[in-house]
Amino acid sequence: MTTKVSPLAPKSYAEMPVLRGVRMATAEAGIKYKNRTDVLLMVFDQPASVAGVFTKSKCPSAPVDFCRKNLSHGKARGVVVNSGNANAFTGVKGRAATDLTANSAAAALGCGENEIYLASTGVIGEPLDATKFSGVLDDMASRATGDFWFEAAKAIMTTDTYPKVATRSADIGGVPVTINGIAKGAGMIAPDMATMLSFVVTDAAIASQALQAMLSAGVEPSFNSMTVDSDTSTSDTLMLFATGAAAADGQAEIADANDPALDGFKVALNALLKDLAIQVARDGEGATKMLEITVTGAESDAAAKTIALSIANSPLVKTAAAGEDANWGRIVMAVGKAGEAADRDRLAIWFGDVRVAVNGERDQGYSEEAASAVMKKQDIPVRVDLGLGSGKATVWTCDLTKEYVAINGDYRS
Amino acid sequence: MTTKVSPLAPKSYAEMPVLRGVRMATAEAGIKYKNRTDVLLMVFDQPASVAGVFTKSKCPSAPVDFCRKNLSHGKARGVVVNSGNANAFTGVKGRAATDLTANSAAAALGCGENEIYLASTGVIGEPLDATKFSGVLDDMASRATGDFWFEAAKAIMTTDTYPKVATRSADIGGVPVTINGIAKGAGMIAPDMATMLSFVVTDAAIASQALQAMLSAGVEPSFNSMTVDSDTSTSDTLMLFATGAAAADGQAEIADANDPALDGFKVALNALLKDLAIQVARDGEGATKMLEITVTGAESDAAAKTIALSIANSPLVKTAAAGEDANWGRIVMAVGKAGEAADRDRLAIWFGDVRVAVNGERDQGYSEEAASAVMKKQDIPVRVDLGLGSGKATVWTCDLTKEYVAINGDYRS
Repeated sequence: MTTKVSPLAPKSYAEMPVLRGVRMATAEAGIKYKNRTDVLLMVFDQPASVAGVFTKSKCPSAPVDFCRKNLSHGKARGVVVNSGNANAFTGVKGRAATDLTANSAAAALGCGENEIYLASTGVIGEPLDATKFSGVLDDMASRATGDFWFEAAKAIMTTDTYPKVATRSADIGGVPVTINGIAKGAGMIAPDMATMLSFVVTDAAIASQALQAMLSAGVEPSFNSMTVDSDTSTSDTLMLFATGAAAADGQAEIADANDPALDGFKVALNALLKDLAIQVARDGEGATKMLEITVTGAESDAAAKTIALSIANSPLVKTAAAGEDANWGRIVMAVGKAGEAADRDRLAIWFGDVRVAVNGERDQGYSEEAASAVMKKQDIPVRVDLGLGSGKATVWTCDLTKEYVAINGDYRS
Repeated sequence: MTTKVSPLAPKSYAEMPVLRGVRMATAEAGIKYKNRTDVLLMVFDQPASVAGVFTKSKCPSAPVDFCRKNLSHGKARGVVVNSGNANAFTGVKGRAATDLTANSAAAALGCGENEIYLASTGVIGEPLDATKFSGVLDDMASRATGDFWFEAAKAIMTTDTYPKVATRSADIGGVPVTINGIAKGAGMIAPDMATMLSFVVTDAAIASQALQAMLSAGVEPSFNSMTVDSDTSTSDTLMLFATGAAAADGQAEIADANDPALDGFKVALNALLKDLAIQVARDGEGATKMLEITVTGAESDAAAKTIALSIANSPLVKTAAAGEDANWGRIVMAVGKAGEAADRDRLAIWFGDVRVAVNGERDQGYSEEAASAVMKKQDIPVRVDLGLGSGKATVWTCDLTKEYVAINGDYRS
């Protein structure tokens, strides 16, 4: 297992402000790791509004099933997240583990089990010993504190090489509100899901239904536009909570996601989701390069996204990036295999500002040197114009390196 | 570039019999490689029946366009194949190159350009200098010989570590016939296409339409059930020729693919196609393990194949195989992400004969030792039963190793 921090890690981390209405604590429950925190408890002092999006896997984890069931209740008092074991494909034992964990958390917080949300990340198929939580949750509830975001992000890491945090502020009807988020994820990352695990909290007063609408819309151009290895986890969970603490400053609760008062909030929320998603892509297992792939001129935005993801998921494109090889032929290949309309003879391709191909062949002014210079950078913008319509999309991915193979060829042991 | 032969290479090669009606020659045209043959000419003494299946890429190579156009003519006199340059995404220059090559070959063989078939494999996007062929084709035509299959297979290799040949015999109406085939391919290999390049010839007398029907059916459980890296080439070409030489022994030409006289021939043809396809998968770039993935109990054969390919293309499954890790949780993940119906709680998974999971959780009798013993083998059978219906499919793939990354991170340079 690597201990090196990704070369693409942020140079500095956001200063995470305290957010009224939520407190956190972490503990070493010894699920799998030794000498590090592996369980996080988030506590909402008052019942918080709640929204969630989850993996589209047909084989979801027990915690995903559990959260989906509770969402209809619409209120949250606590979240328990553990790393080291995904509690996925664990059958009746998995359901027993979620029940026991929720029961312990509800007892610690004095609330109903339907106000508890759970997430687990780590190995699939190993039974999770939930009795390890029962011993620590009471204590965690009593010492939970608001100034703990960075520690919270650290407790949920698995193969992540750095914790992922982000914060934004907005204004609702003249009242300032804050949004804080954490995320984890480095492998088994693909779109068409929420993400690995991410928890976002605001002190705004917003009803669950409106939160859900904003979250479902916001996940598309952020977490669902990011891929590390095309593999979709059984456990992907993105949740958004609103503590409503800003009501004390006179912010009237908003029930409708289309309320114009939320316009600024949506911009801030979407920026935060994108920030976290890109942090996950930048921590892709073994990553040394970040690719931002933009497809323009497609028949539709959806077609553009399919093509962009075909490029982002191509092992040959990703290994070329690792080798700093301006191999634009592989971009052509990935466009061709995507299955969406493409006209070879209208295709143009750029690495950074260097146009390498146009009208279906190598650019007349092609300079291997100029293209290679772009590939040597840590951040590589790739653009493909299809010349067919106005559809466009941007996705993010990392390169495929020997280190990815090393990390994943030896993960369980 | 690796020079080591794949550990999965055949222990011995088929003795390729001379096949009446076809002769071959190879030459060093210096397209890209030095000191090795890189161009193959196949000559049919009499016009041969012809069938072909090609890449489904929306950005096909110039030779693929050229072959598609000529197929309607229905007769073949010659095939020119080169390695080192794919003549793909080369715009008008690419079409000029195919025209010039066909023109030179037609002159050398004294036939029409519409009786010539072309295939190119290698780098995409570099203009192909077809004048290099014009100098050698005349000479090749005069020295072409029947006992040359192995040399032919060698001339079309790119990153292949061994040549791929196969032969079968059959009986049509009491007359013995032979089928010989060659193939190349090691990377940029994925189904939903023909293959990389493969050329199959029989001396049977069979009309083009019947050949095409048999080839289109035969490609599905062979080349289209095999994946190295999920990337579909712009150049995939599989062609089947019938010289009709067996007519001299009294074999009456068969025009209808459903003619019962072809039953034995179809069995032999399908076996040969599968043989070649598996040889390609076993030469997957950097491969050290061969995975045969069988999915049973799916809602339909098509659903089984989608799930089998989801497993076969998963980087996490393939890296686990490279690490000899019996990480069946990743099989669950790949089943879940395939999008086809699956019931987590009915799923069962085997590595070899070792059942590792059943009814949605780890097998009660699970033995890490027994599962790991299977993973240490070179050939790893994986079976997943979905418990839903009677749909089934088998696909083949190789593991994903650091060597794959090394080969593809440094391919062009």
